[in-house]
Amino acid sequence: MPACPLCASDGGQLVWRDERLRVVLPDEPDYPGFTRVVWHAHVAEMTDLPAADREALMRAVWAVEAAQREALAPDKVNLASFGNMVAHLHWHVVPRWRDDRNFPESVWGPAATGRGEAVGARRRAVRERLPAYLALLQARLG
Amino acid sequence: MPACPLCASDGGQLVWRDERLRVVLPDEPDYPGFTRVVWHAHVAEMTDLPAADREALMRAVWAVEAAQREALAPDKVNLASFGNMVAHLHWHVVPRWRDDRNFPESVWGPAATGRGEAVGARRRAVRERLPAYLALLQARLG
Repeated sequence: MPACPLCASDGGQLVWRDERLRVVLPDEPDYPGFTRVVWHAHVAEMTDLPAADREALMRAVWAVEAAQREALAPDKVNLASFGNMVAHLHWHVVPRWRDDRNFPESVWGPAATGRGEAVGARRRAVRERLPAYLALLQARLG
Repeated sequence: MPACPLCASDGGQLVWRDERLRVVLPDEPDYPGFTRVVWHAHVAEMTDLPAADREALMRAVWAVEAAQREALAPDKVNLASFGNMVAHLHWHVVPRWRDDRNFPESVWGPAATGRGEAVGARRRAVRERLPAYLALLQARLG
């Protein structure tokens, strides 16, 4: 079994952490603002965690969603926890726009066609707001 | 704006409901056991809900995950809430197997190749366990 990448590293730029979990900004060039909430311990499923830990993890997910909505004003927020490739509990919190690369498909689905210029302009606009987003998120996480 | 399909119908075979939410088994032929938890009210984002409602919704999601693990023994459970096409709050709870149609991609990603026979055998085996799964899930949801 190969070493787990989320045990070996943070999995992105560290935004915030406490004793149980961390919030990171992974390198997802098509999706500025894409944020992950990673449980520190190597656990596969939400129902492997005691209820109090599940609640703590979801509170962080809601804080990320709320900060994205306030600072980035996406058209939609997408939430997902798969773990098919890396079975170490982590949540994807993805701000979505109607003109992004895959909308209305998930970011793991087929890319839309004829969206090159809109995608570039959107990415630049979102990237400009990232410092404000990260500052707000850190304030919210406390 | 077109009528919302999750306001117009249950969105699948009704497994359980209370005053706030319902659990349905949609018609997903490639994925027997694929279950959705649907909030009754037309709300777009988790952070549109008060915390107590968010907790009630996630408790149902965890109950579905736990029943899938106990009755269907999947290799992994996938959780997602997108709402890009239908912006009415609903969670996908998807039991996954290493030989299913898309593994390790999400079920919204590209299909794997060379998996025809395994997929058919897996689907039949899971379908046989669905009555036990639904009975357990209803018992858990109370």
